[in-house]
Amino acid sequence: MATFNNNVPTKFPKLDPKGPAGDIVLAAERAKATFNTQELTKFMYGEEWLDRFSRVLEVIENEPAFDKSNRYYQGRNERVADAFKKDKRMVELAREKKWTDVDSQIANFLYDQSSPFSLHSGMFLPTLKNQTTDEQKKLFLEPALKHQIIGCYAQTELGHGSNVQGLETTATYINETNEFEIHSPTLTSSKWWIGGLGKAANHAIVMARLILNGKDFGPHPFCVQIRSLEDHRPLKGITVGDIGPKFGFNTVDNGFIMFDHYRIPHISFLARYAQVKQGTGEYVRPPNAKLSYGTMVFVRANIVMGVRFALAKAATIAIRYSAVRNQFVDAANPRKWENKVVETAVLDYTMQQYRMLPIIAQAYACFFTGREMLRLYNENQANMNAGNFTLLADLHASSSGLKSLCTTMAVQGIEDCRRACGGHGYSMFSGLGSFYQDYLPNVTWEGDNYVLTQQTARYLGKQFRSVAANKTKESDMNFTSGYLYEYLQNPNSKCPAVEAADFMNPEVLLNAFRFRAASMTQKLVHQLDNQGKSWNSMTVEIARVSKAHTQLVLLSNFISGLQAARSDLSSSTMQALRNMALLFGSHTLEQELADFLVSQYLSPDQAGMVKDLTLDLLSKVRPDAVALVDAFALPDYYLHSALGRYDGKVYESMTEMAEQEPLNHKLVTDSYEECIKPLVHAGKAEGRWKGEGMQAKL
Amino acid sequence: MATFNNNVPTKFPKLDPKGPAGDIVLAAERAKATFNTQELTKFMYGEEWLDRFSRVLEVIENEPAFDKSNRYYQGRNERVADAFKKDKRMVELAREKKWTDVDSQIANFLYDQSSPFSLHSGMFLPTLKNQTTDEQKKLFLEPALKHQIIGCYAQTELGHGSNVQGLETTATYINETNEFEIHSPTLTSSKWWIGGLGKAANHAIVMARLILNGKDFGPHPFCVQIRSLEDHRPLKGITVGDIGPKFGFNTVDNGFIMFDHYRIPHISFLARYAQVKQGTGEYVRPPNAKLSYGTMVFVRANIVMGVRFALAKAATIAIRYSAVRNQFVDAANPRKWENKVVETAVLDYTMQQYRMLPIIAQAYACFFTGREMLRLYNENQANMNAGNFTLLADLHASSSGLKSLCTTMAVQGIEDCRRACGGHGYSMFSGLGSFYQDYLPNVTWEGDNYVLTQQTARYLGKQFRSVAANKTKESDMNFTSGYLYEYLQNPNSKCPAVEAADFMNPEVLLNAFRFRAASMTQKLVHQLDNQGKSWNSMTVEIARVSKAHTQLVLLSNFISGLQAARSDLSSSTMQALRNMALLFGSHTLEQELADFLVSQYLSPDQAGMVKDLTLDLLSKVRPDAVALVDAFALPDYYLHSALGRYDGKVYESMTEMAEQEPLNHKLVTDSYEECIKPLVHAGKAEGRWKGEGMQAKL
Repeated sequence: MATFNNNVPTKFPKLDPKGPAGDIVLAAERAKATFNTQELTKFMYGEEWLDRFSRVLEVIENEPAFDKSNRYYQGRNERVADAFKKDKRMVELAREKKWTDVDSQIANFLYDQSSPFSLHSGMFLPTLKNQTTDEQKKLFLEPALKHQIIGCYAQTELGHGSNVQGLETTATYINETNEFEIHSPTLTSSKWWIGGLGKAANHAIVMARLILNGKDFGPHPFCVQIRSLEDHRPLKGITVGDIGPKFGFNTVDNGFIMFDHYRIPHISFLARYAQVKQGTGEYVRPPNAKLSYGTMVFVRANIVMGVRFALAKAATIAIRYSAVRNQFVDAANPRKWENKVVETAVLDYTMQQYRMLPIIAQAYACFFTGREMLRLYNENQANMNAGNFTLLADLHASSSGLKSLCTTMAVQGIEDCRRACGGHGYSMFSGLGSFYQDYLPNVTWEGDNYVLTQQTARYLGKQFRSVAANKTKESDMNFTSGYLYEYLQNPNSKCPAVEAADFMNPEVLLNAFRFRAASMTQKLVHQLDNQGKSWNSMTVEIARVSKAHTQLVLLSNFISGLQAARSDLSSSTMQALRNMALLFGSHTLEQELADFLVSQYLSPDQAGMVKDLTLDLLSKVRPDAVALVDAFALPDYYLHSALGRYDGKVYESMTEMAEQEPLNHKLVTDSYEECIKPLVHAGKAEGRWKGEGMQAKL
Repeated sequence: MATFNNNVPTKFPKLDPKGPAGDIVLAAERAKATFNTQELTKFMYGEEWLDRFSRVLEVIENEPAFDKSNRYYQGRNERVADAFKKDKRMVELAREKKWTDVDSQIANFLYDQSSPFSLHSGMFLPTLKNQTTDEQKKLFLEPALKHQIIGCYAQTELGHGSNVQGLETTATYINETNEFEIHSPTLTSSKWWIGGLGKAANHAIVMARLILNGKDFGPHPFCVQIRSLEDHRPLKGITVGDIGPKFGFNTVDNGFIMFDHYRIPHISFLARYAQVKQGTGEYVRPPNAKLSYGTMVFVRANIVMGVRFALAKAATIAIRYSAVRNQFVDAANPRKWENKVVETAVLDYTMQQYRMLPIIAQAYACFFTGREMLRLYNENQANMNAGNFTLLADLHASSSGLKSLCTTMAVQGIEDCRRACGGHGYSMFSGLGSFYQDYLPNVTWEGDNYVLTQQTARYLGKQFRSVAANKTKESDMNFTSGYLYEYLQNPNSKCPAVEAADFMNPEVLLNAFRFRAASMTQKLVHQLDNQGKSWNSMTVEIARVSKAHTQLVLLSNFISGLQAARSDLSSSTMQALRNMALLFGSHTLEQELADFLVSQYLSPDQAGMVKDLTLDLLSKVRPDAVALVDAFALPDYYLHSALGRYDGKVYESMTEMAEQEPLNHKLVTDSYEECIKPLVHAGKAEGRWKGEGMQAKL
């Protein structure tokens, strides 16, 4: 064992980074912005929300249970334990500070890490609110709101995710005892992936096949107690635990549960809609199921708004670091700083701009579309309450495509930003690695991103057939049938652009997106209806058609959202956002160029113009890059990134965080005695060195 | 505290998964393959290597230090400690078993996780072998080969990665004492990311700016002792430690080091090439530096071969699981199993095939190109030793593009396979999450993948200018100038295909790739030379041109490799590989369609044919899917995946691995008393329940 003091903390010498200093660089970037950052921030969030945001931030920044400083060093056990502490403290804080739901959501957003109780608020409570009778509300919802019972939502099984109708867990009604018997008939019927179930929950909403008098009515929800309220032990007949480590989300106790002929009372069947008559087991059918589609739209609108934050976070980190980071002297265009030639900021390289600036534009695109979806959701809810379902189908179809496209775009954007940070992007201190890990399930859950495109394409096909057959009345025309109709009026039209600048007209861009989506829909319908292709064989093209429609929706909402905001924004801010919209359109077109060329709306020459336009827009946007990410107003506490700090002190932060690495708490590793010393001291035995080492000998 | 026995291990009930059972399904898949798997395996690896592989596998599968069963559950400290044990045992095993370098490489490949000593073998030893004098070999290399000294390679700094010329660490020669003084002048000059430096190494190759008599000669390598050989303490003047947690590679102690006027003897300067005269500090220039380009080609050929394994591993897991996993009944084409309609295997969905089968084709493409690169490397080394450098430039340029393209493709392929596994792809038990994390740095290190494309494009431009000016002699024509020349003979030619089947002719596909790469090169040169565009402003297009050339290289090597193998392979195996080559070409063309359309070699109608061909090839390849991944012969020990097991026992394996999750070692979580009980028992205080819970009350 070590004969010296081994507990010497590692400290970097007090030296400055090679200049130009990060804080001065970012200040200079901010000074050259063409618009007022705060104006844009207020436009996006509103002052009321921003005040709330600051108030909540101030509280949790000073709460030890919300401290993030250990986050990147901990193993899973420690992380879960800390997440439990945060959950407990969160319940207390909400009471102490009289937080509204919005305040609590802000606190969770800023803390930015799911925890064992996340699904209690996220799924257990909403299900109890929506699907229970008054009696059940008293029994389950009331204590749940006070966290006197803690719940989760157990739907997916080891063998079934996407296909809910294929779930295996059964709930058989026993007429004689007025109970349900929950049972897991196979290994694959084990509930799996259930957040909060592994260790935290004492109740679960269990989706199980309802069996009444021998007949299978398919999956229905039950509220089931699974652990003792006295001492938290699993109840008899239940096998429950944690499903083990995951790529991310390791602060959540995703769990499994199996039931062995487990009896629950009749009241456990959530009976707001469908019902089971006591004693006879007679099934009473639920009313129109369409209402639940509205909720799905709401969830997806929030996912799109979440994509906005995801892209904004990733871009904030990558843009600030790219402004501070220098690499190579650009001989053709050398950078001067205090009269000396210095290395060029990587943000000034065209490729770096191409990799990152469109991601900022995507974040703004998601903001405008998310806002529009929430508006339409509210309009549709009001309509549906009045018995009018006209908006629903279009909204639902677009929301499927948007969930699919935007979350895929977010994952790609986060990873592109991480790579654009070079080597340090791979350090956990970048904040991007763990963020990527935790964000990633979004492409799989709430509808797998490939499967979802089928919903969008199915709707597009239906609309196309109706429009093509002149069966859509003018009064029934909506966004989708509108552009399909327009296309059919002139299916051979060509893009009129003769030079790159012509694409600066948003209508020229929009028309190209409209034509592409419509012509692809037409071709798809033709292959299905006239060429006898099966749906399965067309799923690759189906995914492309959905994407084409959805990108049009995003661009269209961006442009119309901007037009509507004209009176609220100064002309300089308007111009900055206009550049974002054009960059979004032009870059997206370039990425999807093949579709536009195949549709023959765009010529190869015009394709070259769009490439030129994109490069031109990059240099237009470049001076605003830092201001455009600043406008999202994401605080350092939220980012928790050495590279993305507001003050640009990248290298100071990297070294401070390295000092905290647990391996550095000891001067010499514990593995030395067993794994290094025997090898190295063999050299001493051979007489190669004495004392401290070879250098002493030289 | 718990008043019951809390240490009850979690055990799943002994139930079978819902059928069809995984082992039977995979056996059926194997039975329907159209070719002999073992024949293909032997073709790729050779019997000698396969024997070696089995021998080494048998040894390490039975070595506790090589056990993988804890891998997915451990925190970083435990993982690093285990990695040290494996390193120590590896040194012993190599001695005990008299392993050759190849045997050790196989062992490390199978263990599939870098460790503190990895860079000792990977960079420290090769540098000492190549860059030292005989005296230095005796002093450094001899003990290093015996692990009596343990080293690392310290090049990158906190502020400099890609730009080696920008490194800040200095090594100033002190004429009076015949020493060098190594010094870190700023915070950013700290060496950073150095594998093995954090805790393991006692020596480092340090790249530092050589300063002689006040003049800066740029970065040069020094072999520097950094820790005591007696007790492993860092030596005076040195600050060294671990850089902290990373996205992956957390079994490696990537480190930092700073030097405070640290003196080392003259012998530390690696003097095989450049030299510093003792006493005077006179610099003796090194001979031709071109030789080192050869080594780079070798490293990159191995990276491409590594991509083959990476894609093969990911595809093996995803394909086997997709054969076993069922989801939805395909109503249009219901699957029968033992006379009952069962859910369809996800591998039978077109979209799933489209997501995965091209990845297998990419793996085979990388095999053929990697093999060809190694052949060319050997030919070139022999040539260079004879003073002939004609092969070098083309080989180096292609190798840059290949490293860039193939590693990007690998990362994408791993992640696509992970997503294609649905929810369970996100579990660490899939084996794909940690693999992705550890593989990811390949896109950044050994040349950032974007920066590298500039090397390829620069060479293409040079060749194009020479060919266009008729300056390339026929005897000097190589692969690249050959296709550029061909293009210039007929720059307006069109693809002759009139139906999808025409693209089944490899020459038709190849010609399209040739035309595309050549026309893009021409356009790039035109913009640079005639339109006055700057290199920086063209970097986006430059990356595209490099990709176009490199994809052509991959396809071309695939097809010519197959032609050359005609006599070694049975016709059925040949046919299976031919399908792979066509799928690789057709799918790549489809992914890059815009380039082909812009070049106007392909028409929009022909684009449709290529899409049809791809779908057609997917169904041709489908019956061989499992056999094609089996042929890579990756053992379960290597895959360490619940989803990818050879026997298809996916669900049995998922549940067994979940039983091992440390959170399941206790029935009730340690967080219960502090974080759950106070909340839940408040309900008891309110009289809501007694005893075990609400159910007792009902």
